[in-house]
Parts: sequence; C-alpha cells; structure tokens
Amino acid sequence: MRFSIKMDRLKASAIRAVQKKIVSKPGVISFAAGLPDPDLFPMDDLRKATLNVIDNKGKTAFQYGLTKGYAPLLEKLAERLNEKELIKCTKENVTMTTGSQQGLSLAAMMFIDEGDIVLTESPSYLGGINACRPYGAAFMGVDTDDEGMVIADLEKKLKENDNVKIIYVIPNFQNPTGKAWSYKRRKEFMEVVNKYDVVVVEDNPYGEIRFKGEFIPSLKSMDTENKVMYLGSFSKILCPGLRVAYICADKAIANYAEKLKEGLDLQCNQFAQLQVYEYLTTYDIDKHVEKIQRLYKEKCDAMLEHIKNDFPKSIKYTDPEGGMFMWLELPEGMDASKLFDEAIERGVAFIPGAPFYANDGAKNTIRLNYTVPSIEEIHKGMKIFSDLLKEVCK
Amino acid sequence: MRFSIKMDRLKASAIRAVQKKIVSKPGVISFAAGLPDPDLFPMDDLRKATLNVIDNKGKTAFQYGLTKGYAPLLEKLAERLNEKELIKCTKENVTMTTGSQQGLSLAAMMFIDEGDIVLTESPSYLGGINACRPYGAAFMGVDTDDEGMVIADLEKKLKENDNVKIIYVIPNFQNPTGKAWSYKRRKEFMEVVNKYDVVVVEDNPYGEIRFKGEFIPSLKSMDTENKVMYLGSFSKILCPGLRVAYICADKAIANYAEKLKEGLDLQCNQFAQLQVYEYLTTYDIDKHVEKIQRLYKEKCDAMLEHIKNDFPKSIKYTDPEGGMFMWLELPEGMDASKLFDEAIERGVAFIPGAPFYANDGAKNTIRLNYTVPSIEEIHKGMKIFSDLLKEVCK
Repeated sequence: MRFSIKMDRLKASAIRAVQKKIVSKPGVISFAAGLPDPDLFPMDDLRKATLNVIDNKGKTAFQYGLTKGYAPLLEKLAERLNEKELIKCTKENVTMTTGSQQGLSLAAMMFIDEGDIVLTESPSYLGGINACRPYGAAFMGVDTDDEGMVIADLEKKLKENDNVKIIYVIPNFQNPTGKAWSYKRRKEFMEVVNKYDVVVVEDNPYGEIRFKGEFIPSLKSMDTENKVMYLGSFSKILCPGLRVAYICADKAIANYAEKLKEGLDLQCNQFAQLQVYEYLTTYDIDKHVEKIQRLYKEKCDAMLEHIKNDFPKSIKYTDPEGGMFMWLELPEGMDASKLFDEAIERGVAFIPGAPFYANDGAKNTIRLNYTVPSIEEIHKGMKIFSDLLKEVCK
Repeated sequence: MRFSIKMDRLKASAIRAVQKKIVSKPGVISFAAGLPDPDLFPMDDLRKATLNVIDNKGKTAFQYGLTKGYAPLLEKLAERLNEKELIKCTKENVTMTTGSQQGLSLAAMMFIDEGDIVLTESPSYLGGINACRPYGAAFMGVDTDDEGMVIADLEKKLKENDNVKIIYVIPNFQNPTGKAWSYKRRKEFMEVVNKYDVVVVEDNPYGEIRFKGEFIPSLKSMDTENKVMYLGSFSKILCPGLRVAYICADKAIANYAEKLKEGLDLQCNQFAQLQVYEYLTTYDIDKHVEKIQRLYKEKCDAMLEHIKNDFPKSIKYTDPEGGMFMWLELPEGMDASKLFDEAIERGVAFIPGAPFYANDGAKNTIRLNYTVPSIEEIHKGMKIFSDLLKEVCK
C-alpha cells in the first residue's frame, strides 16, 4: 500500500509504550496516568441532565446538528468565557471540538505547511506536538522557567525564524510540569507576540482547577490583536468521556475551523453537547469544580508530604497550584527511564519526562499524576518510591 | 494571519448555500435534506439503554477510553460484519470513527499526497470529495451507469494514471442517486482493482436500508487482497446525533487510523459508544431496521407515484431499492439551479445536482430526499413540483 508522506511523520507515543508496561503489571500503584478521578464525576446530576435531554429534546439530540455546534451551548460558553475568564467574545467566536485534541489538530491543519515551525514550552504536552506532526511541522522548544516561557529566548527564536506559525502554550498547570505562568510573564509574552505574524494556541484544560494562589487571567483575555486561539474543555471539570471541548478565536479562524470540520467529521456528537448544555443550565458547575479542587489539593498535598520529608534533597520538584501533575528533576546524569523498570518491579509507576520535550529531552525528569490514585495509594506508592530514590540518588 | 495552503483548497459547500436559501423561506416543503426521519429514532429503547449505561457502567462511559474504540463494541461490530455483511474480520480490523465522515478524512490523510488522484463515481457524495481536498487531491469522475462504475472507463483511468491512490464508491443506494451496484459489476470491479496498487474506500451508510430487491454483498466481502477500507455507520439505522461509525480494514490501515486519530481527537465519545453497545446487546436492531425500511419504502413510493403519473415523460428518474434519495435528469440544456429559485417561490425545495460531480457536473440533474417530509408533505410538495415541471419542460 502506498501510504502518504504524512504517515512517515507519525511517531509512536513513548508514553503509550510506558503505559503498556504498567498495564502488564497488575497491582502497581500508578502515578503515570493522565485521567481525572472518576469518583468525582457528578453521576446523579449527569443522570438527570441526560434524562431531561432524552425526554424533552430527544429528536434534536439524536439528529444531525450544525458543524459549528449546538447554538444554545455556543451561546452559554461565550457567556461563561466572558464571566469566568474575562474573555470578550460572542458565540460567533466559538466552535465545538471533539476534545481539545481536535482544537490542536485544527490549529495545525489551519496554519502548518511543510517546514513551518511550532514553538513549544520545554517540556510541553505531547498531544500538542503530535497533532502537528502529520503536516510536516518542525518543533523548537523555548526556554521555560517557573514563570512561563523565557521572553528573551522567545523573542530570539521569533526573530531568527520567519516561518514560526504557532506558539503552543499551556499557561495554567501545564501537563507535564503543573506550573502556571505569572501575570507579569503573560503580559510580556503578549507584547512580544503582537509584534509577529504568529498564532498563539492557548490550551487551558486545567485552568479552573486552581486549588492554591490567585486566579491569573488567560492570554486570550489580554489578546488585543486576535492572535490567540483559546482551547477550553469539559474533560477535566466534568468528564472526558463526552469529549465536549471548544475553540474560542477570531472569526476568520472560527470560519476555517467550521469548514475544516465539515470535511473532518461533519460535527461533534450532538447528544453530548445537549447533555453538557442541560447540565450547565440546571446545575452549578462552579460548585462542582470546588469539590474537584478540594480533593485534588488533598491528593497533591499527600504526595508533596513525601517529597518534602523523604526524598533526597538533590531532587527538585514543582509545587503546583492546580491541575493534575507535578514534575521531578533528578540529579544531572540520572536516567528516569532506567529507574522506571526498577520502580514497577517494586510496585510503583511514573512517566519518564524526556518524551515531553519537542526535541531532545532531559532524561532526569519525571511526571507524577496525583488525581487517579486514592490518598492511601499515594502514601503507599510514595513510600516505595522514596525508598527507591534514597537508594539511587546521592 | 498566514493560513496554510490547505485552507486555499477548501471549497464552500454549494449544498449549504442552497440549504440556507431554504431555511430563509419558512413553510417550504423540503426534499433537499439528507437526514433520517427523526420519528423513527427508537426513543424508548435508547432511553433505557442510556440509563443502563449510566447506572451500570457510568465510570467507564464518562471516562477516557481507548483511541481505537470501546473493546466490547469493536468485538460486537466485527461479529455483526461477519454475520450480516459476510465480511471476514476480527476486532483488530475495526476502528471507531466520529461519523463515516471521519473515516473518509482518515483515508484521505492516510493516502493522499499533493497531486494524487481520487477516482469517484459520477456523481458522488460531496463529503467524500471534501474530505480529500485539504491534502491536495485531484479528482476524476469515472463513468457510472445503473449497475455501478463502468469497468472500461475505470480500467482506462487506472492505466493512464499511476498516482490514483483512492477509488471512492458508495455501492448501496448512493447519495445522491439512490442507485445500487449489481453483483456482477461488483465482482468485475474487484477483479480490476486487484491489479493496481490502490485503495477502495467503500462507504456503506445506507446498505441495510434495502426495501426492495435482494441483498447484494459488499465489495469488502469480496476483498481477497485487503484493498477495501469499509465504512459503516449507525447514523442511518439508529441515529446520527451520536456520531458512532467505524472503519473495517486491513490491520496496516487500522494501525495508521489509530495513530492518526490519537493526534486528531484522541478518541471518539466514549459514552456514545457504550450507548450503542448497550442498545445492540439489549434490543433487536434488525427489527428496528425493518421498521425504517417499511416507512422509507412507503415514502419513496409516494414520491414515485407523482413522478410516474404527473412528470413530463422527458424527465428521467431513478427507482431506488433502498436508501434516502432519488435522482432526476431533466431534458438536456435545462439548468436545475435556475428552476430551484422558482420552486422555492412556489413552496417546494430540492438540491440541484451539479455540485455532486467531482469536476464539471450535469446542470440538468436534481437530488430528491424522501425520508424527512411526511407522506402528506410528499404528496403536496410533489404536486407543486409536477405542475412546475409541466410548465417548464417540453
């Protein structure tokens, strides 16, 4: 079979290979997942919302709908973005997507020609990178510190490369590090970006799950030149199985997104859009999100307790103010992927961090997830992990 | 904004422009839609199946799942394809898609490099053509008669063009003509295809809605060389709003489909997959399909009655054995798009057929849908339409 050149560009996910190893070892306590805690799904409310949809809007929900999305939901989302994220927009700016992953691939299709450059944080979310691969994107990591992308390095890379088309960022509680950009850095970032003909893809699935510190406005809310394509999602604040997510962007982008989607999958699941709309208009999602924040903080604290008390002091770690992940840096020269095999032998799993870098990755890094394991499992697993680290680290 | 070259290749849907005109004229009886009759959605059974999913498998249904699809559903589909379509396959061959439209775009991404050729029937389904546009496909219509693609013309085009990558066909009750390929033609087609390094995309959303004549096996069931990528869907036999569809193909294709989907949207809606699985395992979908067949036959017959009795004899028409559409050919030289404006003035709408051709289309053609209007509306609308045609045709 004569496959297209796009197929040569696909890369097997290193994370999936790791996760397969974990699945093959039952009983392992896993900090390797990227899932929300399913005990938090608001099952009763989702049940009632779903029944309301079937009983009162069944024919609409099970029928074809519009490519752009279910109009009342688009309106509700625009309203919510204005209120909660301080993003000035109307429903014209909003397009429904099948998960934020589809927002990423729409951005990639819309802007990437062969050889165009995507700038990413270092490290960054693999799914964002993979979305761009088929179209021949080249990737360049921008230096990233605790406040966000390092502005000097960003500007240098923009200046030196005329064909940067996308800057892909996750300013809130990034997967994999859990870090959030400071307000000041966001402002500086937008000032630089406004000088170049480039699109910012702001991926914000975790923003509402802030359990410490103060709200910091999104880049999109500071976007005076319509350069930001904002990606929002219900996967982490309601449930991921419905795949209800959306883009908020300039109308030119929204129009292309709609046209592209027509060829890609015609439209999102109509029933799921009505489920989410019904849930949003009947129940208080903000109250539900507070519940998520509380439990994730508790779990994050349980994990941190072990890191602070038992880990060798040579190990650096992030102290996330929200989201689902934290990030470890082992002493220089150590290789987390080698540690991984010993760890799962002892009954605990994590994700080695190197694959999260667009190009060459730091081998001494590790991503830990704290949302899936229970508090008891976190204590048990972190005890095993601490003991292992004490043995192997200086 | 510097959009990619892919955006220049997108084409505004001529059908959508027509449909906008219709929406702006309330009260028009429309034969222009492409939707199933929503009165046929098995609402009570879908309600019970949905409740069972929430009550018994809620945490699985609302959580992330596998990119390839929900394993029990994959298995069920493979079983059903073996039984009903005589397609030898296992769940390894099956990949879930968001509507068959996503199957089409996966095929396009998988095989099309710039300048590669897609052969289509003349006319063909617009969505199949649009799925291939962004990647730079060229299109070539193959002569098509009442039995399917004309083999001599197909072979000529395959011989003359080394870069034909995809042959896109809808052998059962095609959108837009309603025609079905004969058994003999299918056999001949596969014999020719087997001599070339090409993939057949067999789009079969209407196959089960046969209300006259005998079952004819799919191309996939005759596919000894693994050249056929078969697209199946629940949109027309259950409901389209859930967007549950699937590809059945060679494992190499299935593997690439999975990898591509990881970057495109990570996975289909998990909840919807469980809804369909629950429905399939609890209720008798074949019985439900019989109900669809009965009503669509009745509606099709109502429409044919007017065509046979009242239309000018100079108009040719298809007499479909299934599906949702029929096709008219007005006398040479007539332009259906000009007729359209007068028709909606009088209160009846259809789709002019020219846009359904990959390249230049026959302007004197019309697509009629009979599944959305009621029997009464069909009689009323066809009376108006007949009167108009009697005035304008010789």
